[in-house]
Amino acid sequence: MRRIKIKELFKAEEKPEEALVLGWVRTNRAQAQFGFLTVNDGSSILNLQVVYDDAIANFEEISKFRAGMSVKVIGKIVLTPNAKQPLEMHATEVVMVGDCPIDYPIQPKRHSIEFLRENAHLRARTNMFNAIFRIRSVAAMGIHSYFQSHGYLYVHTPLITCADCEGSNQMFKITTFDLNNIPKTEEGQIDYSKDLFGKQSFITGSGQLQGETFAMAFSDIYTFGPTFRTENSNTKIHANEFWMIEPEMAFCDLEGLMEIEEEMLKYVVKYVLDNAKEEVEFCSQFIEKGLYEKLTKLLDSKFTKITHKEAVDLLLKANQKWEFKPSYEDDIAKEHEKYLLDHFNGPVFITDWPKGIKAWYMKENSDGKTVAAVDLIVPGSGELMGGSQREENLDVLLKKMEENHIDIKTVDWYLDTRKYGGCIHSGFGLGFERLIMYLTGAENIRDVIPYPRTPKNCEY
Amino acid sequence: MRRIKIKELFKAEEKPEEALVLGWVRTNRAQAQFGFLTVNDGSSILNLQVVYDDAIANFEEISKFRAGMSVKVIGKIVLTPNAKQPLEMHATEVVMVGDCPIDYPIQPKRHSIEFLRENAHLRARTNMFNAIFRIRSVAAMGIHSYFQSHGYLYVHTPLITCADCEGSNQMFKITTFDLNNIPKTEEGQIDYSKDLFGKQSFITGSGQLQGETFAMAFSDIYTFGPTFRTENSNTKIHANEFWMIEPEMAFCDLEGLMEIEEEMLKYVVKYVLDNAKEEVEFCSQFIEKGLYEKLTKLLDSKFTKITHKEAVDLLLKANQKWEFKPSYEDDIAKEHEKYLLDHFNGPVFITDWPKGIKAWYMKENSDGKTVAAVDLIVPGSGELMGGSQREENLDVLLKKMEENHIDIKTVDWYLDTRKYGGCIHSGFGLGFERLIMYLTGAENIRDVIPYPRTPKNCEY
Repeated sequence: MRRIKIKELFKAEEKPEEALVLGWVRTNRAQAQFGFLTVNDGSSILNLQVVYDDAIANFEEISKFRAGMSVKVIGKIVLTPNAKQPLEMHATEVVMVGDCPIDYPIQPKRHSIEFLRENAHLRARTNMFNAIFRIRSVAAMGIHSYFQSHGYLYVHTPLITCADCEGSNQMFKITTFDLNNIPKTEEGQIDYSKDLFGKQSFITGSGQLQGETFAMAFSDIYTFGPTFRTENSNTKIHANEFWMIEPEMAFCDLEGLMEIEEEMLKYVVKYVLDNAKEEVEFCSQFIEKGLYEKLTKLLDSKFTKITHKEAVDLLLKANQKWEFKPSYEDDIAKEHEKYLLDHFNGPVFITDWPKGIKAWYMKENSDGKTVAAVDLIVPGSGELMGGSQREENLDVLLKKMEENHIDIKTVDWYLDTRKYGGCIHSGFGLGFERLIMYLTGAENIRDVIPYPRTPKNCEY
Repeated sequence: MRRIKIKELFKAEEKPEEALVLGWVRTNRAQAQFGFLTVNDGSSILNLQVVYDDAIANFEEISKFRAGMSVKVIGKIVLTPNAKQPLEMHATEVVMVGDCPIDYPIQPKRHSIEFLRENAHLRARTNMFNAIFRIRSVAAMGIHSYFQSHGYLYVHTPLITCADCEGSNQMFKITTFDLNNIPKTEEGQIDYSKDLFGKQSFITGSGQLQGETFAMAFSDIYTFGPTFRTENSNTKIHANEFWMIEPEMAFCDLEGLMEIEEEMLKYVVKYVLDNAKEEVEFCSQFIEKGLYEKLTKLLDSKFTKITHKEAVDLLLKANQKWEFKPSYEDDIAKEHEKYLLDHFNGPVFITDWPKGIKAWYMKENSDGKTVAAVDLIVPGSGELMGGSQREENLDVLLKKMEENHIDIKTVDWYLDTRKYGGCIHSGFGLGFERLIMYLTGAENIRDVIPYPRTPKNCEY
């Protein structure tokens, strides 16, 4: 008999009469003449209830099966329309595949989230992390599905880079040198010519610039890969390694960009609701009450668009005491985001930001004060995406690079996107973990990354 | 009027009467009263032929449009069933969006592949790299589609690692230290406690070990992400940064593994033929003659299975002069692979390798000499995937780790996969670039990576 996955068993229109399931014991409630095993095989958050009785030769042995053991179970599939689960298995055979000693850390009881973080290699075996990492996987597929079905090219921009425009003080240095014995030049400088790439190199914080070069060939492209920051901050929303999606669209202005962001987000939310319904329901029950409703509501909501100036006007007029005074020159604080989201009762695009606080490559508006940038903030999570129209005018761009002390020599290739057949183009960045926190209700980025890397934490 | 992509235009069952296309000029053949522009927008390798004449006000200007310019064209769509392309546009409006000076390196003529490598930021604008990178993108989607539709969990294993089991001499070190001023302990050792993670860290060459921990929770998982090697070798098939797919399946033995490898490869090939047909046809014409037939043939072929011993028997019996003498203790050389592929006229699984040349985590066979490993070799490319059943017996594994000088303390979490509910499980690695070379016929890994990183080469 071929194995069937529990998810398939629950989904099947026509249930098999008999099935073979392989998985891990979650609980075992043994009585004198019979007992109940719940088995999970990771295909879904749903467990299979396996009823066994003393007609089975090794009944005594089964009665002592512990949580965490891997097992093979064979039996009749019986529909149970009045029970919590739609079906159960009446076992004819229950065999231990792999033992699990009594010191197994993941016992069938509530563990603290901190304890589970310290056992990150085992926490995926709990319901909560089973749900979170399934949603992460399904959301990744939703993102690929959206972009590929809309004709975008998936481009693997390089992780190792020598381009220094994001500020190398935020990038990890990489080297093949023995740090105890770094080659020096006669002048006593580090002799990078002896390193593998012949110069100083880093791992990158963004693929945007390389992505733009591909947008000028394929019109619509996206990246989806890991990025790195050396930020030494221990917060709930920062990690030193995280995944990012960076789409870039030629012939697309700020209006077009917002259209794409809204359409993409709704697509991915719908994709997750369609393909990980049970997992979202679990999170809605145990992580963020009302999560399911929040997500379904998003699908029908109209995203509001306001300028940064309008937002500040609104905040200043609000009958509210601010910790940070709203300002036309400054960023929007968390408390401001919250107010705006409540006020508009749904996601908000904030456009046309003061140029002083935004990146050098963003398109300068005709007012000379703002740039064609946009942040999308969403209920519960705040900022989810940040994007902009790019400055396509080479002379303006060169001026801004000079003002920002960008070494033009290291990115001459980037300037060619403006020199040779340039066009209005736009792009945005979506932090994948931020999205997963939004989709699961998880409040700490450490709980949506399989093996998070944060300051002083690089286990596994 | 809304822009339509050229691919959509060619695919549409019902063509629009009129269309607006945005893209880049590939060629311009101007006559006295009319002319032909070919425009590509990157949605496909196919160009749109745009016919313009002196009824258009700026006819003189259009006649001088150069390759590389970005343009907006509007016109009537006219079917041309007898021409090479199925339709063309009779323009009513042709407007330059972005100029392209005369020194544009990508002219409408044949460029050497070396020249294009040196202009990697512009080469995607040529037919060849347009085709290669589209196939790369479509193949990536094919891989995700295969695994997700079969219930696998996509897991983002960490890139930054402190685990040292792959051999840290092959890994890039990463640090936030100022290399001119590395903190030392009182004993004169490097004080890694002052680095961001508090210990020495690397960027990884494999996500397998972390992947296995997730297979023990989700049954079937796969990774798809970048990996790094410091190898200082300048060959056609080595890069220091490349993408890898590493699936790992619980309750799966070597036979099951081969079944999955064969099914997956056929799925991805079919996916690419279905979704990038024109691009494969282009590669078949201009990169590897017969590529299209090679790929369609694969779909119907039965993969051969032989053991390493049987393969060596066959090679020794062959009436052939070998540069490397086939040996029961050694690897299979390129020339041997070629012979076997010719002999069996299709892909070959070679199983049960001498344990001395394979990794420590592979399952030892009962003969005490071989391991349950398998390499898949395919016509034209040689080795495409390498996998094995994993040693699930904790005692045997510990012995092998000791023999291989693996520091058990750094991977105690890995051992828990054997300790707590372990089971027979298997996995394989697929080098994504190797696959793209197979799918496009490209002979040099530098031509299938957007911005390749190889020794002394870290541009862009």
